[in-house]
Amino acid sequence: MTICGERTQSVRQFVDRVARLAGALRQLGIESNERVAILAHNSDRYIEYLFAVPWADAMLNPCNTRWSMRENAYALDDSQTAALFVDDAFVAMGMELSREVKSLRHVVYTGEGETPPGMMNYEALIANATPIDDARRGSAAVLGIFYTGGTTGFPKGVALSHEAFWSSQMTLVVAGAVPVGTTLLRVAPMFHVADMAVGYAAVLQNATHVVLSAFQPQQVMTAIARHRVDTTLLVPTMIQMLVYHPAARTYDLSSLKTLIYGASPIQEQVVLDTLALLPGVRMFQAYGQTEMAPVVCLLGPEHHSVEAAALGLLRSCGRPTLAVEVRIVDGEGREVPRGCVGEIAVRGPNMMHGYWEKPEETAAVLRGDGWLLTGDGATMDDNGFLYIVDRVKDMIVTGGENVFSAEVENAVASHPDVAMCAVIGIPSEQWGEEVHAVVVVKPGCQPTEAMLIAHCKQRIAGYKCPKRIEFRDTLPLSGAGKVIKTELRKPFWMGKVRRVG
Amino acid sequence: MTICGERTQSVRQFVDRVARLAGALRQLGIESNERVAILAHNSDRYIEYLFAVPWADAMLNPCNTRWSMRENAYALDDSQTAALFVDDAFVAMGMELSREVKSLRHVVYTGEGETPPGMMNYEALIANATPIDDARRGSAAVLGIFYTGGTTGFPKGVALSHEAFWSSQMTLVVAGAVPVGTTLLRVAPMFHVADMAVGYAAVLQNATHVVLSAFQPQQVMTAIARHRVDTTLLVPTMIQMLVYHPAARTYDLSSLKTLIYGASPIQEQVVLDTLALLPGVRMFQAYGQTEMAPVVCLLGPEHHSVEAAALGLLRSCGRPTLAVEVRIVDGEGREVPRGCVGEIAVRGPNMMHGYWEKPEETAAVLRGDGWLLTGDGATMDDNGFLYIVDRVKDMIVTGGENVFSAEVENAVASHPDVAMCAVIGIPSEQWGEEVHAVVVVKPGCQPTEAMLIAHCKQRIAGYKCPKRIEFRDTLPLSGAGKVIKTELRKPFWMGKVRRVG
Repeated sequence: MTICGERTQSVRQFVDRVARLAGALRQLGIESNERVAILAHNSDRYIEYLFAVPWADAMLNPCNTRWSMRENAYALDDSQTAALFVDDAFVAMGMELSREVKSLRHVVYTGEGETPPGMMNYEALIANATPIDDARRGSAAVLGIFYTGGTTGFPKGVALSHEAFWSSQMTLVVAGAVPVGTTLLRVAPMFHVADMAVGYAAVLQNATHVVLSAFQPQQVMTAIARHRVDTTLLVPTMIQMLVYHPAARTYDLSSLKTLIYGASPIQEQVVLDTLALLPGVRMFQAYGQTEMAPVVCLLGPEHHSVEAAALGLLRSCGRPTLAVEVRIVDGEGREVPRGCVGEIAVRGPNMMHGYWEKPEETAAVLRGDGWLLTGDGATMDDNGFLYIVDRVKDMIVTGGENVFSAEVENAVASHPDVAMCAVIGIPSEQWGEEVHAVVVVKPGCQPTEAMLIAHCKQRIAGYKCPKRIEFRDTLPLSGAGKVIKTELRKPFWMGKVRRVG
Repeated sequence: MTICGERTQSVRQFVDRVARLAGALRQLGIESNERVAILAHNSDRYIEYLFAVPWADAMLNPCNTRWSMRENAYALDDSQTAALFVDDAFVAMGMELSREVKSLRHVVYTGEGETPPGMMNYEALIANATPIDDARRGSAAVLGIFYTGGTTGFPKGVALSHEAFWSSQMTLVVAGAVPVGTTLLRVAPMFHVADMAVGYAAVLQNATHVVLSAFQPQQVMTAIARHRVDTTLLVPTMIQMLVYHPAARTYDLSSLKTLIYGASPIQEQVVLDTLALLPGVRMFQAYGQTEMAPVVCLLGPEHHSVEAAALGLLRSCGRPTLAVEVRIVDGEGREVPRGCVGEIAVRGPNMMHGYWEKPEETAAVLRGDGWLLTGDGATMDDNGFLYIVDRVKDMIVTGGENVFSAEVENAVASHPDVAMCAVIGIPSEQWGEEVHAVVVVKPGCQPTEAMLIAHCKQRIAGYKCPKRIEFRDTLPLSGAGKVIKTELRKPFWMGKVRRVG
């Protein structure tokens, strides 16, 4: 069942509409394996799109809603996408894209208003279509192409098979992260494979899908209370915005039993405060990447507790799921001893076929021995827990010492007045780099720089403590909800060269 | 880890031996996709075989240990099998097979004694081999060919892919039937896909495998107590032999938490008596067939209770797993209304590729629309529970009324003196057929025919009650542990023709 605003839809209605929408796509001349894109905020119609396109034997291509017209035009052109769905928020960009991208033959309007000129109406297509049978593409077929930006260079289209998603989502089900009969809140962006994997898993588990178009803390809490939501996927910054929201304790959030998060590291204090606000909530950290559809490691509820924090386990991104093999390798692809830093290599049925029509980029990460290189540095301990030591750019070198931003962020965020915090290295004549914290305080709190630095000194070595604290109202966030540290660093590093990253 | 008799083996040793055994197979000249068979009782070496053959890029072909030399020769010849492993129990048959089956180039002796002439020694092969890397055949490749007898005609080789097993075993894991870190007793025959699916699932779940070569009630109970076994797969007749064993209460069976059964219907009273003997045990009924690798439906612990029995749920074989779709269809393949009898049709990733080199037999069950016809008659209720109404031959027509043997068996078996019971139809001048029960009593009990018939009359309609009770010491069992009713019927039907079945 889907619930989207005031619109509720049964499984039977959903399947009927999907079969009709697939029929409409075929009647529009969409051929087997052609790409059909969507550029829209979350909605029940987005879920229909995710099912109707493979049903019609075509491939998905969900566009990143945070990207510029130029970036999306690149992705649509690179994948030679034949049709594009847009909602009310993206009508203007859709019109531009239909002029810019030569391969686009159809633009379908999924919004609630008047159908813009040159576009087809989504509901009219469904109403007039003849339903067709599911193409049953088979597990080896490509389900879709998923463009990832990375921080540099052009976007790459990750080609993921039905088998890749099936394997990845089954690991979530096996772990208990998507319980049978769950009521799932889908507020993380649907263009991300993380929400897709959780969403497909939820379909297997006969879920009710409660859909929110975008993340607003009070709307999220209202939806949880109103629909008795028991499971959701959030990114750590969303969790922070909920847990430290001044009205958090005025909502009945008691139904929420399962909280999956990922995409970026979480601060230990946030986990502990989440467990305090939501007693008994089962937290799952998922580590992965688009290339793995996306789940590689899971850190389960048994490792989210005060005791686990004391053992340092909350700094781990978990252990490999039962679908994958993971090795920490050196530059030659040889496994390094436990405890040593290397690159995470992974293989399993959830691995991508490759980057769409980019054999060189594909060969750079898929070395032909079956292993995929993730680009993430980590260690593995004797119990198989992985620790991302790095995302190399996020290490600060100060006075010859290596300082990991995450450790400092944990120290700062453990102060009761701090809502969010990001730590970066800024240039220093004396130290090369010095540790610099950017802090958003909780409503009504007014900590001073000296108070926060003193707080840190009780917790971590002096050289790791911020030299300066900068207070801001918000932090710049990426589409995936990660703090964009490059933006924070920019004013400090204008005209200078960082030595790491 | 594996435990087989006094022999214990770590995962590391197991993987090393598998890599060597695979190397030995390649060095013997076994080529990609060639078939390698085994004819042996359960052992840790059997599990090594199950992994080493695909590791070497070859296909499995586990022989039925209950079959005659002639039947196994047919299967080995039909599949053009290149190598055969035999243990001590099957040395003589192995010698005969090596003469009879032209395709067999190698026979490998996995036993504990002197290597018989003309055979190679298993341990010597492993000791002298160079380990190789896993061939990583991929999900679409055929993992093995599994011969099923059926009750008539020649055996057929069911070709099952890696994906088929992976999908089937994941449904067991998702259902909680194979817990993480489980200690699994493997006593059901390993040549059956049921034990293979549970065993592969257990490997994913990092299990300890306790292996028994054959089913003996006291050995099973000793192994459970000694190794603190928490999970096992049994067929219903094995469960009966354990639960009604006079010494059952003298063993510490408290570690046993998960009991999977299948392959044939179970009598309600046996379930209730099992729950009484093993309080808190979680029972899972699996319904399926070799063609589905094999799991189609599961009836979980929440439906194994006095309350579930009162609702009639213990007569169900459960609901479709999350990997499959199930329909009850008429002779034209159209879905029948809920509650109506039809044939179970199923589709999903665990479906066979087909019968080995038997396109006509394959086309008879795989009709090209993606659905596999199981040959089992059933109804489905509004909640998706399936009820096998039939296996047509097991219905008795008496005085124009249809009597289902299972219902009568439940009534007879609910008498406290009855250990096992099978109900058949025998010829009757007056009624066409009459209901006839064959009973094995519990040790020390001496119920009379009149007592048991009176017991039934309190429970089911008079025309359903047995007209006669025949007492025996044992019942004839098939390889899968099913009562062979054809043998029970034979003396009554010599020279006569049954109207049903």
